[in-house]
Formats: sequence, structure tokens, C-alpha cells
Amino acid sequence: MGTTILLNCDMGESFGAWKMGNDALAMPLIDQANLACGFHAGDPLTIQRSVALAVRHGVRIGAHPAYPDLAGFGRRHLDCTAEEVKAQVLYQLGALDAFCRAAGTRIDYVKPHGALYNDLVVDDALLTAVLEACAAFRPGLPLMVLALADNGRERRLAESAGVPLLFEAFADRAYLADGRLAPRRLSGAVHHDPERILAQGVAIARGEPFPDLDGRPLRLHADSLCVHGDNAESLAVLRRLRAALACL
Amino acid sequence: MGTTILLNCDMGESFGAWKMGNDALAMPLIDQANLACGFHAGDPLTIQRSVALAVRHGVRIGAHPAYPDLAGFGRRHLDCTAEEVKAQVLYQLGALDAFCRAAGTRIDYVKPHGALYNDLVVDDALLTAVLEACAAFRPGLPLMVLALADNGRERRLAESAGVPLLFEAFADRAYLADGRLAPRRLSGAVHHDPERILAQGVAIARGEPFPDLDGRPLRLHADSLCVHGDNAESLAVLRRLRAALACL
Amino acid sequence: MGTTILLNCDMGESFGAWKMGNDALAMPLIDQANLACGFHAGDPLTIQRSVALAVRHGVRIGAHPAYPDLAGFGRRHLDCTAEEVKAQVLYQLGALDAFCRAAGTRIDYVKPHGALYNDLVVDDALLTAVLEACAAFRPGLPLMVLALADNGRERRLAESAGVPLLFEAFADRAYLADGRLAPRRLSGAVHHDPERILAQGVAIARGEPFPDLDGRPLRLHADSLCVHGDNAESLAVLRRLRAALACL
Amino acid sequence: MGTTILLNCDMGESFGAWKMGNDALAMPLIDQANLACGFHAGDPLTIQRSVALAVRHGVRIGAHPAYPDLAGFGRRHLDCTAEEVKAQVLYQLGALDAFCRAAGTRIDYVKPHGALYNDLVVDDALLTAVLEACAAFRPGLPLMVLALADNGRERRLAESAGVPLLFEAFADRAYLADGRLAPRRLSGAVHHDPERILAQGVAIARGEPFPDLDGRPLRLHADSLCVHGDNAESLAVLRRLRAALACL
Repeated sequence: MGTTILLNCDMGESFGAWKMGNDALAMPLIDQANLACGFHAGDPLTIQRSVALAVRHGVRIGAHPAYPDLAGFGRRHLDCTAEEVKAQVLYQLGALDAFCRAAGTRIDYVKPHGALYNDLVVDDALLTAVLEACAAFRPGLPLMVLALADNGRERRLAESAGVPLLFEAFADRAYLADGRLAPRRLSGAVHHDPERILAQGVAIARGEPFPDLDGRPLRLHADSLCVHGDNAESLAVLRRLRAALACL
Repeated sequence: MGTTILLNCDMGESFGAWKMGNDALAMPLIDQANLACGFHAGDPLTIQRSVALAVRHGVRIGAHPAYPDLAGFGRRHLDCTAEEVKAQVLYQLGALDAFCRAAGTRIDYVKPHGALYNDLVVDDALLTAVLEACAAFRPGLPLMVLALADNGRERRLAESAGVPLLFEAFADRAYLADGRLAPRRLSGAVHHDPERILAQGVAIARGEPFPDLDGRPLRLHADSLCVHGDNAESLAVLRRLRAALACL
Repeated sequence: MGTTILLNCDMGESFGAWKMGNDALAMPLIDQANLACGFHAGDPLTIQRSVALAVRHGVRIGAHPAYPDLAGFGRRHLDCTAEEVKAQVLYQLGALDAFCRAAGTRIDYVKPHGALYNDLVVDDALLTAVLEACAAFRPGLPLMVLALADNGRERRLAESAGVPLLFEAFADRAYLADGRLAPRRLSGAVHHDPERILAQGVAIARGEPFPDLDGRPLRLHADSLCVHGDNAESLAVLRRLRAALACL
Repeated sequence: MGTTILLNCDMGESFGAWKMGNDALAMPLIDQANLACGFHAGDPLTIQRSVALAVRHGVRIGAHPAYPDLAGFGRRHLDCTAEEVKAQVLYQLGALDAFCRAAGTRIDYVKPHGALYNDLVVDDALLTAVLEACAAFRPGLPLMVLALADNGRERRLAESAGVPLLFEAFADRAYLADGRLAPRRLSGAVHHDPERILAQGVAIARGEPFPDLDGRPLRLHADSLCVHGDNAESLAVLRRLRAALACL
């Protein structure tokens, strides 16, 4: 049933004196907060405050681990071994979870960030490493990955590792025919028209087809929609999307 | 009974390509390994391997959190607020514990490192912050502090926070009359004579007095002796100390 | 002649994806830009762009070196040796100067940032270390320090090191009787009333006395006023201050 | 004339409390020291001491810039834009040069480190970025690159940028037919037999062919041989190589 789709948002991405995002405004509007764990953003105090904010609003906390690259905000591929990535993810899960425990909750799922997220779509060894980190950290801890037209590869590797999957989709991004995100350098890769974003979000929530970058119908099965709340415009769209989903 | 004194050693202090210590040789000789958590040393893979080594030898794992200062190896005071220190310690406890969990064990105690360790002796707000981090991370998790002639202050603050204490002493360091370590810049601050180190270690283990820096008798009550294993000489002393303690 | 007082502003304090300040708006209004050098802020691309912006507006470039502490934005004292500080400052001067050279200019002066700036007021060894770094980097390179009621100490140490001094004062901060800044925790430590800021700035520019925190007259001799441009309000005050100084 | 080939060695690769290499022993045996600039190794004090050591022994100083990756020692590819790489290299050149100036010398050439070095062999945009950084920093500053069977590509791009090239070869590495280094994962990729290393080094110095990984003759034209001095064995080979080259 499409009405059960959740809204997730990257949060806790300030670092020391540098502020990013509008977490206080966006948190009441979402279901799942992907919290930076210190490798691309999120100093310890920021993490602590982000966890407290999520708890206050009853929002589930996801770990948002990344390659260790503050200067690049985790958006640059770093050529780590699978063994390194597994250890990096474990480290970040534990660090975030300490604040969750201290706040009486725990990590609900894991959604890798930036370049690491993108690398998982194409690199079996890395995906396996992240799955193993999830399984090692806590049996049953789910990994959130990109919903594709066919997630057979992800399901197969996750089953081997004994890790449940959550699938996320984007209301504001154009898709290629196979369900991968259209690269940002392509014209039309990001939707700016609120109506279009709402329509795509509702279609995904209902499990109905919507037009891909080339206008052909694409159907995705997703558990969660990735939303943004870093400026007034995105917050407005987020409010409308939430309202629209509530009516399904 | 003095024979139950344990031996603890700072370990896991490599970082990436840089190696430090002789953990493989020292681990079989100790009871408690204080493992770096990434802020002064210890990248994720180093932590993972250090935890595995400790588990293999049945050694208890202590967290060894520090100020965030890789270039200074955590030996330089950094003027953080108590709130920052609490969050920094929580972060590091969680990060290390993730590898413990994955290896089927858990953090046994917390022993701050370097400048943070020293600051706790004189700063009530910082000591309280670290105690609160221990309590928030896991009820009953003990904090290891410096054994003094009078640990009334530490006991009082720890009791308020509901945190058990472990006291550590040094066989190879000279002491001031009140049980603080003689500053390294003072002549005679560090013992190099193995006989002297053994004698002081055995005296502490038995709860008997030993001469302080000025030759006056000092008695310390300690749960653990801090030892070193980073070179052939210190390993030799460690082996003799372990043998001597076994005969008590 | 008071009309020659300059306006300096801390700039280039973004880092990677995190933005700080309104450099593009403030740069046309100032004479001297203190550019972060990578230790508290300022990744290489940010430095490059900040230098380009300063050059475009004919603004002199000052190095703004700091303790190595990104998470603390250089605002936390780090207990470095004088030898370490000298090397840290040299490193940062060189790094910034590379971009100046590439843009056909060079560092005009050095103004330490945050905790390092504050430490220089009270620590002779640190002040000497920074002076030595300036002298070693380029003979004649001036150091900017806090204008006090009596800068005898600074003049004496600078003369020994052969380093010219520039003195800066603040239009928007209250002063203690000796010319040190009133600590921010004190009530009235920061002026928010634009009229008060303008009056103090003009008085300093004219070498005339103005009221300190306790209302007693204080006279400072300054080469430059430190201004801010990080929000609409501070930009408005900056524009008025600039206009007022132009009429002197 | 082969006798003019120089010996270069990566140095200054300690970081804070972590020591790497035997710089004090190797420095007297080499002609060119490639000094880490802080991004993969080399804190400010280490750089200062490394420059002093090189100056004392009359060794030319090369900058050894890297991707910003301390935990990976600059050995992992980081997916930076050409603009980022140019700025990163400029930053590191300036930082190192500050210590050279303070010691009365200057950077003699630039040799990128690790993954960045390897990426230059295959990525024209990155090679151009590094060349532009060299040219922007100081007209005439040479870039050291891998000597190949055919360096036409490097010569063409360097000529466009107006940057002189230095070519380096390896006595202890096996080569593919085109002059690229045999990947370390291949059997026989690294020579361990001192006689073989000496023979290959002398052949390269003389401009004579030597056997590649497959035993076929390869001829390289090189200005410098990259040597190692991090252990007793490599120091012994280095001494013999130096003696052999002196007899040419």
C-alpha cells in the first residue's frame, strides 16, 4: 500500500562553527533522519543535538556513514578496499549509536552517503562490505539502498549477508530507464517544478509508473522517499508532499 | 589482596601507514588493553585488528579516548567545554564498541588518554563530563583514573555520576608526595632501572609503601599497573614484572 | 592622522561544502582581508577564490593563521610549544602565499586568528614564535596585534625579532581599562547599537578617547579597525562606518 | 652521460608522534629529497626538520604533494576535480616552500606522491592541473614524472604549460613493455635481489636497455633514480648503488 511510504532526509550535516540545513524546521515533517556520523560532516556535539532533535519529534534515526573526507563532504570517491570500508562503516555506526543509546534509542537503519552510496550501486565488493558491517553491528539492522527497476543484485547480496533492505526513491530527481538516477550533468536531471515533484512522489508512493528522463514509464517499489529541507523552497515542497501522501 | 593487581597497556596506537608499539608481543603479557579510538591514534582498521588481538588473548578491552588531535597524539591540552568533552568521549566509546560487538565482546572500562587524562586530575567539570559519558554509554561502565594518596575527590564525583572507578598506578614513574606523577621535566621522574621498577610495582601490588621522588614513603591503592611494551627493554621489564606479580 | 585608519575583516572562512560569511558583499567595503589558511577554515579552493576576490577589489591580503582545529574553528586554546606554533604559522603563511603568488600579489601582513590571537596577548614565548615566523618568512612582513593602552611589551618583542607591527582596534567591542577586550561573557562586552559602534570607530580613527566598559575614557592608537560582514546588519554598519571614516 | 643520474628519495614522512623512514641515515646518500607537505604525511615541525636536514647535506628539496588523505597515506585515489588538484598542489608547494625560504633555500622540483603520481600517468586533466600549479608557483619549476618508453604525452602537455620535466626511473621495480611500472600484485613486480637492482640502476644510468617483466629489453631515459632508505637492507643497496654510479 503506497500510503505507507516514509520520508527520509539527510541531517546533522553541520560541522563545528559551520551550519548546514534547516534541521529544526525539517525534522517535524519527516519520518527518518539520516544523521552524519563525523566522516563527511557531524562533529560529536552536532550528532548529540541531532539525535536529541530526532527523538523529540519521534523520527527514526538512520546512520549516514561516508568516506572519510570532510573537505569533500563525502562526495568524492575514495579508493578504499572493501576491508577498509567495512571498518569505516562499523566505526561510524558505533559512534552515532553511542548518542542514540545515551538518548534511549538506537540506530534504525543505515543509509550510506554521497560517493559511498553511489559506489554501492556498481561495486559488489563494497556493497558486501557495507552489508557485513550492518550485520556485524546488529543482526537485523536494515540497509537503505537505491530502488531500481530491478533490485535483484541488491536482494541477492543482502540475503547472503542476512541483512534486510529498505529501498529509497527520489521525487525530485529524473531517472534513467533502469532506475538509476540521471547524472546531475544531464539537462533535466533535477526537477525544480513542485508539481512535477509532487506527481512523481505520489506515483512512487502508489507504486504507479512515472516518466523517466526520456519520458518512458518507470515503476519503482520504494519504502521511503528522500526529501530535502535546506531552504524555504524545499521546505515548502516537503510540506506539500507530506500533505499529498497523507491523503493517499 | 595485592596479587590481584592487573596490568594495563596503551595499544592500538598505529594510524594508517604509521606503526607504533609492539602490540603483538605485549598483548600476551597483559590483562587490560587501552585501545585508541581514532582521535589521537587508531584508524578503523587498526581498531578492528587491535580488538581481534585482544580477544584472541583474552585481554579486557578499555576505551582510550582523547582530545581530537592526531598531530599532537592527544598529548596537548585542548580547551574544550565540558559539553564538548562529554560528546567527544561518547563518540569514541561508541566507535570502539562497534568493533567489540562485531567481535562478540564489549568495552570493559574507560581510561582517558594523554592530556585529557591529566586534565581530569585537576578539572572537576571535565572529570564530571567524562563520568557522565561513561554512565550514558552503559550503566556500570567503570572509569580508570590515577591512584592518588587521597582519591576522595574522584570517589565523590564518581558516586554522584553512578560510575565505578578503577585506580591505576605506575611502576616506572616517580611520584610526588600526594600521589600525582612527578612531571617528566624533573630529574628522576621516570625510572629506568628494572630493579627499581619491579620493586615499585610489587610494593603497589601489595599495598605497601614505596619511596616517592623525595624518598619519602608513599602508599597507593591501585587496581591496575600501567605498563609499556613498545621496545625490547620495556617488554623485558614487563615479562619480569608479570612473573614477580605471579609469585605474590 | 585618523583618516588613514584601515578596515580589516576575517574572510575566506568557508570550508568545502560549508559556507561562512558574505565575502562577496563585504570585500568591496574593506581595505585588508584576513584570509584563513586551512587550519581553522579555508580549503585550498576557498583560499584560491578568496585571494582572487581580494585582488579584484584591490584589497590587501593578510594571513590569518590559527591552531590546527577545524572542529573548533581555531577558537580553542591548544597547548602547543613555541616551536610548534612557529612551524604551524610558517606552514600557513606559505600555503596562503602560494595562491597570492599565483595571482600576482603577496601576503601583506599576518593577523593570527581566534585562540592563537588571544594567547599572544599574554604569552611572550608564543608571541616571539609568531614574530620569528613572520621574520623567517619575509623580512619586513608586519604582524597585526591588539592595540592596547600600552603596547610596550609588543613593541619590545617585535623590535627584537625585527618585525614591524600593525595595531588593530574594534569599534563593536567594549574594552577594559588597559585596552584588552572585555570578555564576551560580561554584560555589555559587545556593542549592538550602530551609533555606538560608529562613535567608537570614529574616535579610534581620530586618536580620541572613548568610554571603556566602565565608562572611563580610553585612548587607543590603531592602524586598522576589525569589522564584520557576515550578515545584513553588520554589512549595514560597515557601510556607515566606511562613509563616516571617509569624511574625517 | 649516465654518470649524471641523480638519486631521489621520499622523505619527511613522519607525522607527529609517528616516525617513518631513516632520513638521517639516507639523506647523506642521496641528491634529491622529496619532502611530504602535510597532506599524506609531514606535520609542520617534521617539514621544518626535514628541510634543515636536506640543507645540511646539500640535498635538493623536491615537493612531494599528495591527495589529502592522512589515514590512507596518499595511496588511495581520491576523485578530485582538476581545479581541486591544482589548488591542493599549490597549497602544498607554498607550505613546504615557507620552510625552504626560512632555511635560505627553495623548492627545486615537484614530484607528486602515491595515488596522485599514478593518476598523472593516465589522466591528462590531472597532469595539466599539476603542471599549471608548478607554473603558477614559480616559472621554471620542474615537474618530475615517470620515465616511460615514450614520454611524448608528458612532453606535449608540459610544453603547453611551460613547465620543464624531470624523468625518474626505478632500479628496484619491474617494468611493463611501455615503461609503466609492473603492478605490485604481479609476481616479480619488485626486485629484492641487490645484484638485480644494481644492474638495473646502472643500465638506466647509462641509457642502456635492461630486461622488463617479461625479459624483453627496455630502454628508459631518466634524470633520477628513486631509491629507498627505510631499513637496513635498503640502505645497504643504496650505498652500493651510489658507489656503482660513482664509478660510471
